[in-house]
Amino acid sequence: MNQFFNRKEDIVTDAIDGFLTASGGRLARLDGYPHIRVVVRSDWDKSKVALVSGGGSGHEPAHVGFVGEGMLTAAVCGDVFASPSVDAVLAGILAVTGPAGCVLIVKNYTGDRLNFGLAAERARAFGLKVNIVIVDDDIALPDLPQARGVAGTLFVHKIAGALAEAGADIETVTAAATRVISGTKSIGMSLDTCTIPGSPKDDRIPPGKAELGLGIHGEAGVEQVEFASASAAMEEVAQKLAAEMEDKDHVALLNNLGGATVLEMSLLANELARSSIGPKLKWIVGPASMMTSLDMRGFSVSVYPADEQELDLLEAATPLAAWPGISRMSSFDITALPDGLKPIRPLPSEHEATRLFLTRCCEVLIESEDDLNALDAQSGDGDTGSTLAGAAKALIDGMDRLPLADHTQLYRAIGQELSETMGGSSGVLLAIFFAAAGDAASSGLSMTEALKAGLARMQEIGGAKLGSRTMVDALHPALDALGNSMEEAARAARAGAEHTATIVKAKAGRASYLNAQQLEGHVDPGAEAVARLFEHLRA
Amino acid sequence: MNQFFNRKEDIVTDAIDGFLTASGGRLARLDGYPHIRVVVRSDWDKSKVALVSGGGSGHEPAHVGFVGEGMLTAAVCGDVFASPSVDAVLAGILAVTGPAGCVLIVKNYTGDRLNFGLAAERARAFGLKVNIVIVDDDIALPDLPQARGVAGTLFVHKIAGALAEAGADIETVTAAATRVISGTKSIGMSLDTCTIPGSPKDDRIPPGKAELGLGIHGEAGVEQVEFASASAAMEEVAQKLAAEMEDKDHVALLNNLGGATVLEMSLLANELARSSIGPKLKWIVGPASMMTSLDMRGFSVSVYPADEQELDLLEAATPLAAWPGISRMSSFDITALPDGLKPIRPLPSEHEATRLFLTRCCEVLIESEDDLNALDAQSGDGDTGSTLAGAAKALIDGMDRLPLADHTQLYRAIGQELSETMGGSSGVLLAIFFAAAGDAASSGLSMTEALKAGLARMQEIGGAKLGSRTMVDALHPALDALGNSMEEAARAARAGAEHTATIVKAKAGRASYLNAQQLEGHVDPGAEAVARLFEHLRA
Repeated sequence: MNQFFNRKEDIVTDAIDGFLTASGGRLARLDGYPHIRVVVRSDWDKSKVALVSGGGSGHEPAHVGFVGEGMLTAAVCGDVFASPSVDAVLAGILAVTGPAGCVLIVKNYTGDRLNFGLAAERARAFGLKVNIVIVDDDIALPDLPQARGVAGTLFVHKIAGALAEAGADIETVTAAATRVISGTKSIGMSLDTCTIPGSPKDDRIPPGKAELGLGIHGEAGVEQVEFASASAAMEEVAQKLAAEMEDKDHVALLNNLGGATVLEMSLLANELARSSIGPKLKWIVGPASMMTSLDMRGFSVSVYPADEQELDLLEAATPLAAWPGISRMSSFDITALPDGLKPIRPLPSEHEATRLFLTRCCEVLIESEDDLNALDAQSGDGDTGSTLAGAAKALIDGMDRLPLADHTQLYRAIGQELSETMGGSSGVLLAIFFAAAGDAASSGLSMTEALKAGLARMQEIGGAKLGSRTMVDALHPALDALGNSMEEAARAARAGAEHTATIVKAKAGRASYLNAQQLEGHVDPGAEAVARLFEHLRA
Repeated sequence: MNQFFNRKEDIVTDAIDGFLTASGGRLARLDGYPHIRVVVRSDWDKSKVALVSGGGSGHEPAHVGFVGEGMLTAAVCGDVFASPSVDAVLAGILAVTGPAGCVLIVKNYTGDRLNFGLAAERARAFGLKVNIVIVDDDIALPDLPQARGVAGTLFVHKIAGALAEAGADIETVTAAATRVISGTKSIGMSLDTCTIPGSPKDDRIPPGKAELGLGIHGEAGVEQVEFASASAAMEEVAQKLAAEMEDKDHVALLNNLGGATVLEMSLLANELARSSIGPKLKWIVGPASMMTSLDMRGFSVSVYPADEQELDLLEAATPLAAWPGISRMSSFDITALPDGLKPIRPLPSEHEATRLFLTRCCEVLIESEDDLNALDAQSGDGDTGSTLAGAAKALIDGMDRLPLADHTQLYRAIGQELSETMGGSSGVLLAIFFAAAGDAASSGLSMTEALKAGLARMQEIGGAKLGSRTMVDALHPALDALGNSMEEAARAARAGAEHTATIVKAKAGRASYLNAQQLEGHVDPGAEAVARLFEHLRA
């Protein structure tokens, strides 16, 4: 599969530069590309404890996205899934560490431990106070004494970061980080592997299966399990976590491993709340992409039984867009539906002249069914005549329900009838036409002006303009001429309808998908219907 | 491909419930599942102009993610890529609209226009002030008068939202939204199609191609273009936008269509800044997933020439995690590398006894090369002997560079030599051992205590414990016994080394990947080397 990069060897530096460009001056980097890729806070004055993290790239927004006020001081970036060098880590430490010292937050991978570890030793030779904490929150491999560091690292970044920002000393920050690490448990599940840039994808997970207990470097999960549903998948994850959780309130961190959609992640948040550990989860960070594995279609859940002070630190403000914040995980209000969803039915009333007028209009449309169908067959599916005739018959049948004596109510009632019986776009558009005309009439406009207002609203919503080859091409000139006489309106409607036969590029409606040859010489059926109505009204 | 959902027909409601659960009580929903899916602000008192948006689902975090203080008042959600019903929209309008009225922000798709349009008419029948703005920012199809509404919609949400939050009246909010819409231009590019839940994927984009000018519903782009690099791809997008941009400063909105990695999106931000329109782009929103098309591996760029008031509105605070904020798009500082990356070379000095001692230690390792290689062949790649012998030879050769007369400096210098000549994990770990021992010695500890401090640090970083089947199994008991006598230390080292042959489950290092049969009866080569060193020192 294609991916958005230029040269493979420039991916990390190009991405860092892009992140910095979009950081609004909040961040800087050290010189030393391509080997030394260190992002630092540009406002840092070394007066507080520095927090340095990093590791291989491919986990974005970790770690560059978490550099800033209240979280990391610097991030040291290796190649995709590869540890940064000792020199790069040392450069990061030396660049940000002052008398208050520095804490390195290292995910538990051999390369990271060794390179951060040796860099720390070299930094100490300069008399700097450097502590290391090793994050090993993954519980996928219970027998492995060297558990991996995964998304639970974010708890450490946030809690230690907020403490350091508040001016805590290095011992306090280190102790807090150590406590968080010892209490954090994480596990991941994925439906697909990740695609390492420039490498073919390892398609090892067959359809219907998921991998449980995977790391963040594309390595296989501990086991392949059946994938039946999001609900069952989350419950498997929950069971693994349950075995490690104390009987306390926990914070959950729901992390997108990169390739799950935002839709899926919200759905997984729901499953997490409904899972067997749901009752213990009182707060949630995410769902969000925080510690990704490139484009892996999976998620991880981390849990930590934060105490009150730690909750305050998790809630402390930070300007970083990558940190999604923490929310109470709770039931939510379901508000009763508002009144008014049922259409207001006007009181029926009798008015003989109106009944005759409407009935005759309907009959015109019923009589035109075959002709209009034939016209529509030239540019559509040949059912305009039947649709209009069907609506006309329904209107005749429903005449007794209409407020025939209340002309301002009548418009809206007709619209409502049409929207219910006609269906489709034209039904909605005619409903809008009559409803808007009714509004205008009730505010005192003349019938002509009211109809024009209805047309304007129908055009606004439907998007058809004059020349779009729709009924508007007949209706618009007819209403313009109606102020003079019905005779002129009918002539204008007919001229407008005939004109549609010359419009070879439809601009709205279904005919816009057809080409010139299919349209030329054929009058639009909607426009024809309008013309026939006005010609009838003239008679 | 598998996706995280349960029943296809529940995707949207399950996802909304998940989002609400994680909203900390900030949001509520209307009753009326499954047909009416409306999310509303739970703190809404109808005193200000309401903003209602929505449309098909599959574009998360749009629109539910943008409901909240300073943005939308309600979002009405349809099925994936399908418009919500008139009733659902009407319910949303009625639920949040008070005397100040309501503005509907509708993306330009026929279904959305009609359903929101008719709902507006029905709401107006209740005497509510309802305005509609139709977003049509897509420039992919210049000949289409009905341009689609895509990610530029976010500019409308934010600017109109901040205005409404500040108490502006409906005319002001509508005018602002209309102005933003008329000035916003967007275009998208993708390397892959999206996967509609429950449907097979449409693999219409071959490797090496990209689609330019695509919508957000999986429909094909206007053209397939060659995909050569992220840089060339972004320039094609930039060229399309350039043709529509005024000669003003613009805000760019860089949107992930769902399936691009966070890494790729940062890289694309860099390309956007470097593109031909880069000089006109003074601010950036994102990169972030804002208006996605499920998992489409693509991006879109929207541009808008915001004036100062609009910039203030874009910058106005909102608590919504889905809104990534706006940043000045700028060059960034590149800070000079700190001093100290070059290792501090101690002054060489002569000390005959120390030279002889060190030389003899090295000779022991050189003489053991074949034996240690043979042992390593049982559990590794058979090179431990050669690695140690090579390092020992290099140390003999480099003896003249060492501060032999300054024993506290000497530790660190040996560590430095080993890290440079030995390579690999063991080189780094021995460097850490000697550096930490040197630190301890320089703070006044005895040689034995200093070596123990070095061992502790090496264990902390390397992770090996007693019983992990490493050199620690010989070194740890030897240093413990060293306080008594060298004789006891040597015996302890030998006993520890012999013990490793009984450890059938390695807990650290490469041997941890082997099984019991491969390990049983074979002494760990690192432990054997330590034992031989101590046995020599006893002699």
